[in-house]
Amino acid sequence: MSQSIAANPDRLLPADPGTRSIARSLLERVQDLPIISPHGHVDAAVIEHNTPFPDPAALLVSPDHYVTRLIHASGVSLDRLRAGSATDSREIWRTFVQAWPLFDGTASGYWLRTQFESVFTLGADLGEMSADASYDAIAAKLREPDFRPRQLFKDFNIEVLATTDDPLDNLASHRALADDPSFNGRVLPTFRPDAYLNIAHPSWSANIERLIEAAGDGATGYSGYLQALENRRRYFVDHGAVSADHGVLTPATLKLDAAEAEQIFELARAGKASAQDRNTFEAHMMYQMARMSVEDGLVMTIHPGSFRNHHQPTFDAYGADTGHDIPFATNYTEAIRPLLQDFGTAKDFHLVLFTLDETVFSRELAPLAGFYPSVYLGAPWWFLDAPDAMLRFRSAVTETTGFSRSSGFIDDTRAFCSIPARHDASRRIEASFLARLVAEHRVSEDRAHELIVDVVDSSPRRVFKL
Amino acid sequence: MSQSIAANPDRLLPADPGTRSIARSLLERVQDLPIISPHGHVDAAVIEHNTPFPDPAALLVSPDHYVTRLIHASGVSLDRLRAGSATDSREIWRTFVQAWPLFDGTASGYWLRTQFESVFTLGADLGEMSADASYDAIAAKLREPDFRPRQLFKDFNIEVLATTDDPLDNLASHRALADDPSFNGRVLPTFRPDAYLNIAHPSWSANIERLIEAAGDGATGYSGYLQALENRRRYFVDHGAVSADHGVLTPATLKLDAAEAEQIFELARAGKASAQDRNTFEAHMMYQMARMSVEDGLVMTIHPGSFRNHHQPTFDAYGADTGHDIPFATNYTEAIRPLLQDFGTAKDFHLVLFTLDETVFSRELAPLAGFYPSVYLGAPWWFLDAPDAMLRFRSAVTETTGFSRSSGFIDDTRAFCSIPARHDASRRIEASFLARLVAEHRVSEDRAHELIVDVVDSSPRRVFKL
Amino acid sequence: MSQSIAANPDRLLPADPGTRSIARSLLERVQDLPIISPHGHVDAAVIEHNTPFPDPAALLVSPDHYVTRLIHASGVSLDRLRAGSATDSREIWRTFVQAWPLFDGTASGYWLRTQFESVFTLGADLGEMSADASYDAIAAKLREPDFRPRQLFKDFNIEVLATTDDPLDNLASHRALADDPSFNGRVLPTFRPDAYLNIAHPSWSANIERLIEAAGDGATGYSGYLQALENRRRYFVDHGAVSADHGVLTPATLKLDAAEAEQIFELARAGKASAQDRNTFEAHMMYQMARMSVEDGLVMTIHPGSFRNHHQPTFDAYGADTGHDIPFATNYTEAIRPLLQDFGTAKDFHLVLFTLDETVFSRELAPLAGFYPSVYLGAPWWFLDAPDAMLRFRSAVTETTGFSRSSGFIDDTRAFCSIPARHDASRRIEASFLARLVAEHRVSEDRAHELIVDVVDSSPRRVFKL
Repeated sequence: MSQSIAANPDRLLPADPGTRSIARSLLERVQDLPIISPHGHVDAAVIEHNTPFPDPAALLVSPDHYVTRLIHASGVSLDRLRAGSATDSREIWRTFVQAWPLFDGTASGYWLRTQFESVFTLGADLGEMSADASYDAIAAKLREPDFRPRQLFKDFNIEVLATTDDPLDNLASHRALADDPSFNGRVLPTFRPDAYLNIAHPSWSANIERLIEAAGDGATGYSGYLQALENRRRYFVDHGAVSADHGVLTPATLKLDAAEAEQIFELARAGKASAQDRNTFEAHMMYQMARMSVEDGLVMTIHPGSFRNHHQPTFDAYGADTGHDIPFATNYTEAIRPLLQDFGTAKDFHLVLFTLDETVFSRELAPLAGFYPSVYLGAPWWFLDAPDAMLRFRSAVTETTGFSRSSGFIDDTRAFCSIPARHDASRRIEASFLARLVAEHRVSEDRAHELIVDVVDSSPRRVFKL
Repeated sequence: MSQSIAANPDRLLPADPGTRSIARSLLERVQDLPIISPHGHVDAAVIEHNTPFPDPAALLVSPDHYVTRLIHASGVSLDRLRAGSATDSREIWRTFVQAWPLFDGTASGYWLRTQFESVFTLGADLGEMSADASYDAIAAKLREPDFRPRQLFKDFNIEVLATTDDPLDNLASHRALADDPSFNGRVLPTFRPDAYLNIAHPSWSANIERLIEAAGDGATGYSGYLQALENRRRYFVDHGAVSADHGVLTPATLKLDAAEAEQIFELARAGKASAQDRNTFEAHMMYQMARMSVEDGLVMTIHPGSFRNHHQPTFDAYGADTGHDIPFATNYTEAIRPLLQDFGTAKDFHLVLFTLDETVFSRELAPLAGFYPSVYLGAPWWFLDAPDAMLRFRSAVTETTGFSRSSGFIDDTRAFCSIPARHDASRRIEASFLARLVAEHRVSEDRAHELIVDVVDSSPRRVFKL
Repeated sequence: MSQSIAANPDRLLPADPGTRSIARSLLERVQDLPIISPHGHVDAAVIEHNTPFPDPAALLVSPDHYVTRLIHASGVSLDRLRAGSATDSREIWRTFVQAWPLFDGTASGYWLRTQFESVFTLGADLGEMSADASYDAIAAKLREPDFRPRQLFKDFNIEVLATTDDPLDNLASHRALADDPSFNGRVLPTFRPDAYLNIAHPSWSANIERLIEAAGDGATGYSGYLQALENRRRYFVDHGAVSADHGVLTPATLKLDAAEAEQIFELARAGKASAQDRNTFEAHMMYQMARMSVEDGLVMTIHPGSFRNHHQPTFDAYGADTGHDIPFATNYTEAIRPLLQDFGTAKDFHLVLFTLDETVFSRELAPLAGFYPSVYLGAPWWFLDAPDAMLRFRSAVTETTGFSRSSGFIDDTRAFCSIPARHDASRRIEASFLARLVAEHRVSEDRAHELIVDVVDSSPRRVFKL
């Protein structure tokens, strides 16, 4: 092959030559801007301790359930793909390379290919090398001192990286990084209390007892619980957090009075809550989280609509995050209304709404974000953070809300080395979308040069209060 | 800037040069055809009395909740945007001009920019002038005698303009215009009985008492109510009305027997109807409206799926139509069935179905319109009456139903000066869609020249019996 | 017209010259591959007996409810379009030709036009000839010996053609064709038990009594019923069947214990089952069908989400398949879960999921097929088996699941002469989609040449175990 497609400077840009040329020039404007990643799942300790990355399979295959799921779909047991199994890393890598053709056309394939090209400089497509050759080439890179997390953080031009953390995490790594004069990036914690709000969570009871004990200021029961949540949020704010994230089944919100809430809370504590109670309590706690966000300033982000761990036997054998979280239909308009009635116009309240159901982009989210000062459109997420889907998102929301109401790109990843590829893809798509509007004389080219900076750089800073 | 994008003759046309050239030629075929606007919200009295338009802010900003909502989302209180508030018009205009960059890429921005260019001939983009300069330039135009409604009606090449009217309106303005030999346009009333059919409407009780009193032919109760509706529809027909429009929560329809209907009617009159009763009665009245349409020939149009006045505090402070009507999921297939069982093939019955939920375009509306002789596809409406959304509509429905089953463009606007911009945008999109089919050898170019005339001109005449 | 659009070698290919040129080369790679049609509705007896096709109207108009529905929508009574009515064939054909302009832009129009050009070699568009001239030209062709089904089967380059059959069909035609040394194609039966599983089906009771009698091995009641279904599936397998197809209201699945199932079964037999029972039993039987598929290897295909016979008066007058099967919203994630819990990773189980609701492509089906080894994406079906809709499908699913998880094209047709046009259209769309990915440097051109063979040829062989 004359040139790797991953190295092509025009990759992801529109085919029409006139539009592509506009897109190129827009892309140039933002290509070297720093990466701002306000939501993701990298482990702060890895950066604190500058832990060397493990072998290629343990870095790129085993922990990435977007990669393992598609290989699993082709009939390969997860046993053969998971670290800690009988299979060794090189064997996992061989299995992955054999499955590599499955990834053509996928977002995961794009990110991987871009990493192989620009981070690991393999120089050829994975399919053109032997599995052992690519394994050895990447493994060699991983042993180089420049391939430690802190150097990559710098090389990747990351300015802000948010992690996702348990409310009782002591955030020692975040503190250490903030206090380290030799580290210039910002690694910020994110408050993620799902396992303390969802009473059906297997460890909810244990979690809340620990929470109340640790931070309830001596109060017990429901009021101690609320107090502890408020205190831990403060703790996060004090350690640099800018947002609280909520993975919920639906975006339902509800204001219960304290007595009603307390009653469900105690039922749940006694193990007697029904499925209806679970939904009611989560909806109420979303309302409470909004109230607290108004008070402490944490941006509130909501990720609803995923049926987690769809295949029980796989969950039983391998646990969560093993590739079978399946989206379902989401409806925001009525569900989010109780929250917005009371906080939709609250000063400095920022509420970022995500969806895995594309139908709400034009139908509900754009109209909501086009009226409520608090509401921002979450960038396309899981399965939708791909070129065509990101273009569908822009097409669906822009005519109603313009460019000012979206969150900026969210990589949402635990795959540290994929971060530049993901942000690069997003910038190419923003350039492509804007280039079409310019080519169709819907936005002037001068203005498009301002807008692309706004969506890539200013939006995440503004929305996440960075 | 060398040339304003609003003045570009190729605006909204596809970027591919070959397709654009076909689109240009199709557009030329229809660019000078008269405007037919079978559904909108202009006030007939303004045309009757040829009332001069007020100042720029009171014409273009304050009454247009598609404009104010987006400025509101950016954090500006509606107080600062509404006529009659402490703020004067020039101050409102300054606020608007400051917010103008928010509108890039939006449909509202496109219509405004086109008006500034072609109606007010500003000669520069709003962002390139001071707010006072643009205010003064537009205000000066508004004082010119040629800027009175009747002259603009003529200059805009409007042939038919339908208004939206209360069933008890005496339609004096419509009558006066019809009788005025110096006025050549057609200004037609539209029967809009929502506030008489929805028993949850705050003034329903008062409305129906007035209705029965005025037109019940002496009958009382439910039968007087039906009689009065029939009579007022006749009155509208006699004053030129061609359609009756229905803004409903859902497209549910239901045939109650007279006793059941009467029972709910009396419960509602006594203030004792439940939410369920409200839905049942509205569904039943949709059935009744269809029956009356079959009898009196008024085209029936249905606009479902909007959660009106989503933010109660804003509604309490500023009333309806203040930017927070938020769509939600709509399902037509089962809901509309009772009506279609009895009237779906009724002679000369025309039923135009609109949606704010794009998912029903391909799934339900195109299949319904592709079988029932009565069913026509309402053009993309609110939030969807924008270039990309209109293309998605055509793409979603055409492969199933072709071009013969759609209503033609509906501007649905109260912003009189935006009417040419809206129809022009629609024609450009129809040309763009057809040009792609020609370029892909799916429709011959000769046939496309016929089809564009059909969709722009013949469809609205045929569907709305003009 | 210089050249018929149906004869244009670039028809359906993208307008952008660079992308089109890639698409052309990809199309060339697959244009001459044999047709594999794993699901459709051709009558095997017609091929067995090599029955001459009847006249043009009886071949192309009357039996095709995708054609008659759109003419019906234009106000023509079905009486004037149906064989066996007072109207003769030539009169039906004249009505059809008069309505021909309605089909511009539709999938049905495209298939018809392609047939007129390439099967019947009319040499001009239908609209450019008199109705009688086209009738006579086609009728003359139909009298030629080369226009008999077996010769066309060969000329169309059909390798595999699956029919859809009643479980009690003796499959004599399939057997005869398999045993006929002069016939080289494969004509395979498909097990379609809807009328034996849906207890609301008007002839369910009679059907199951016949079934149990014929194949229950002497057992009676529910166990005889299950046994008979298993036996008939075996019979189909022995006669070459590779799949069992299920037209269901929703994709609900449920595992009842035998006692619960038997109870509903007996209630239904006694005519006392409720609507809820109907749904429960169908869901349970979908579970049972999956169990049997795991055991006997038949690929399981599910077609949910159609409201059959929407217009009761038309159904009463003309029966089923008369153009008013209307889709509605479908949700797979929770519905299909009980089945997937137990069989989602079962060895060699293939489950092909279809939808008439596009929203589940990206939201549910791609994520399901991207994890479960059993799940395959059904190709776009009814109303969605059209160029733009097929492109939307590829765009919606590929970024999540790549190319390996789809069924390959399904023509699902009873219109034998349209089969080549349908497969040709699909190949053109696959080439168009892949060409865009190549032009955007997302897939290499070499790889695209492999992928198009995979999606056109290898996928249906792999998924349907051919």
